[in-house]
Amino acid sequence: MIPASILLSNVTLYTGPHTTPAPKQWLLCRDGLIHSFGPMTTVPECPEAVSLDGTGKLLMPGLINAHNHCAMTLFRGLADDLELNEWLNRHIFPAEAAHVSEEMVYWCTKLAAAEMILSGTTTVADGYFHEGQVARALLESGMRAVTAHGIVDFPAPGVADPGRNIAAVAEFIEEWKGRDERITPAVFAHSPYTCSPATLQAAKTLAQEQKLPFFIHIAESRQEQKIIMDPQGTSPIRHLSALNLLDSDTVLIHCVWLDDEDIDIIHKSGAGAIICPQSHLKLASGISQASSMDALGIPVGLGTDGAASNNGLDLFVELDMLAKTQKLRQLDATAMPAARALATATENNAAILGLTNLGKIAPGYKADLILLNLNQPHLQPFYSCDSLVYSGSGSDVSTVIINGSIVLRGGQLLTFDLAETLEKVRSLAVPLGHL
Amino acid sequence: MIPASILLSNVTLYTGPHTTPAPKQWLLCRDGLIHSFGPMTTVPECPEAVSLDGTGKLLMPGLINAHNHCAMTLFRGLADDLELNEWLNRHIFPAEAAHVSEEMVYWCTKLAAAEMILSGTTTVADGYFHEGQVARALLESGMRAVTAHGIVDFPAPGVADPGRNIAAVAEFIEEWKGRDERITPAVFAHSPYTCSPATLQAAKTLAQEQKLPFFIHIAESRQEQKIIMDPQGTSPIRHLSALNLLDSDTVLIHCVWLDDEDIDIIHKSGAGAIICPQSHLKLASGISQASSMDALGIPVGLGTDGAASNNGLDLFVELDMLAKTQKLRQLDATAMPAARALATATENNAAILGLTNLGKIAPGYKADLILLNLNQPHLQPFYSCDSLVYSGSGSDVSTVIINGSIVLRGGQLLTFDLAETLEKVRSLAVPLGHL
Repeated sequence: MIPASILLSNVTLYTGPHTTPAPKQWLLCRDGLIHSFGPMTTVPECPEAVSLDGTGKLLMPGLINAHNHCAMTLFRGLADDLELNEWLNRHIFPAEAAHVSEEMVYWCTKLAAAEMILSGTTTVADGYFHEGQVARALLESGMRAVTAHGIVDFPAPGVADPGRNIAAVAEFIEEWKGRDERITPAVFAHSPYTCSPATLQAAKTLAQEQKLPFFIHIAESRQEQKIIMDPQGTSPIRHLSALNLLDSDTVLIHCVWLDDEDIDIIHKSGAGAIICPQSHLKLASGISQASSMDALGIPVGLGTDGAASNNGLDLFVELDMLAKTQKLRQLDATAMPAARALATATENNAAILGLTNLGKIAPGYKADLILLNLNQPHLQPFYSCDSLVYSGSGSDVSTVIINGSIVLRGGQLLTFDLAETLEKVRSLAVPLGHL
Repeated sequence: MIPASILLSNVTLYTGPHTTPAPKQWLLCRDGLIHSFGPMTTVPECPEAVSLDGTGKLLMPGLINAHNHCAMTLFRGLADDLELNEWLNRHIFPAEAAHVSEEMVYWCTKLAAAEMILSGTTTVADGYFHEGQVARALLESGMRAVTAHGIVDFPAPGVADPGRNIAAVAEFIEEWKGRDERITPAVFAHSPYTCSPATLQAAKTLAQEQKLPFFIHIAESRQEQKIIMDPQGTSPIRHLSALNLLDSDTVLIHCVWLDDEDIDIIHKSGAGAIICPQSHLKLASGISQASSMDALGIPVGLGTDGAASNNGLDLFVELDMLAKTQKLRQLDATAMPAARALATATENNAAILGLTNLGKIAPGYKADLILLNLNQPHLQPFYSCDSLVYSGSGSDVSTVIINGSIVLRGGQLLTFDLAETLEKVRSLAVPLGHL
């Protein structure tokens, strides 16, 4: 599957979010890693390598989506323009009860994988149920993934007895840990309003024992503190802190409603914060504290959230939303400049997810790379990588390499049959989704 | 140039923002207009018509961009993440002084036209200088346009003597009025902080005499009232009202900082309000009062603003931003539902710009139509037209028909040489924009 080597030539090379890309470069991938790169005047002879010409294209690290519920593509557009609790309790939870199955999770995750690969995402952190099917679908798609099995204190898809919610995750980890270098199993405690303090602590203990990431939705809505099960602190973050859940392996998803004390607690704990700007707007949750946390040095990352609350998995759109909404929150156009946004979906996300040697163009780093076609009206003139944030789109991606393997070429997916996946998802769709 | 007839078959037909599209339909264009449509069981025989198969595609009205400065594509990404006044006075105005010429306006407007057509926009309202070159470029591109000549009280490109600023616009109107049914010349008074009360009144008088739209930037930033030249009222809107500038042929661009009295004045005047959500965020202006005005019945439309403050001309992105930012402003996920957003960029914009029989699928309406490929991962399942707002992208557009003429087919621009335009714009770019 992985060719020994790939030689990309004539590319404009991304050299980091804060620097100007270098024109007319080559880059050699070997054994799944970035081996070397340089100007075309020094291009090596590699007769054994697969050759890709990158004329007119930018070569950059594949984007990392640090929060998704992949299988929820089935519910994309099913229930829009609704208040969070109504959306969740009257629409999404019932739709999940009626439609989530192993088959649904497998095929709808494949649909999500196609959407992500086509828009330049090479790694995703997922959190859902039937997570073994998520891991299987993502592995087959060619993506890199952190697949976190969900935990709630009520019956869930694949976990009919909530008394087994921790045991089910332990079994999932047992099955997937060390199975393939592209898949990292993990633990996803849904939230403090769906998990008791005892459940949260048991979930974190499991993650610590296995040295795996622990994910949790937190501080998403204004109302959240009121619905926390048995609160141990005076804010959602202080609740987690009182339960000793915060450390550098904890990933805090959303972080919209934080006060200064919360931010200070997160900062001292070493935990990372994942922002989902589009979901925050669409569900009217608010605007996250991303730029304030970033300024303090808290690791800030980016995710799309599931397709039901977004409603798309294109991280280029999310980058734009992150930079723009932070300017709005501070009424300061200098807040969250484009380069800081770009860092969230590349190097920051890699660090937060505990994935080493990922998210940068550097020798020895994973060969997770994308080519974007710059020779299009909306990307010209191209003065700097700011244009990736403010003018770019996932549809600009033409080629995707993950772990040294070519997954997308000339806009065509090479790892699985997209037409079959589209057909399967349409057959699973809630009636009316067949147009 | 216009074929006698085009017969589109097997399309999913958009029937308005608030209704479910109808599968398996045909639509016949004749003499530049929508002639008739119906289910495939009733498809007429039209051997003389150009035949287009729309299997897997949605047929909808072309989008209307009600505010752009097309030629500013040259400055896309040149100066990002800067405060409005610094951006304007230290970067954009100097760049314009150095780079704006008739040649630049012509080619950079062509670049904008390519970007707009490729992303499904069929009509644009432009406001700039050397507006004759804008009209020429847009006419050649195949687009429909309202081209409004700019007015400021200082020397401007093509109008070295501000004493001739009204005369120059009158000459432009004389040259373009009635010349082609696709081009409507108009008047664009830049703002109350660049035009004196006397200039504003002379500009409006010219527009009234010619029965043409009068555009003005208004209430964009918090600081605006302080920099108005010789204020006649206690807010930017009250300033315009005191000068008798507000009526149903006046187009108010931005409308971010309004109080209840301002909104009431706009409502009573019949003026339309054009919202540019991305520009408002990127320049940290704030969030417009779109949903409040829409609820009152004020005609609310949508524009991208120029590519220097956005930085892209894809109205599908703008639709998403409009719906999401209004939810944020009200912290209410039911604010500005997708269907209301869709109306802004179609029927509302047509009405505000005074363009009759445009922006809907109906017999006798202009054949300004686009086909979108629904058979893609990010648009499946497709439950309703909400997905156009929350999941769609300009890159989903495959075919564009304007005034009954095919302008884009299979993603290829048919009206002009895109490669030549890209090359010309790169040669005009400020040094560094050549990557």
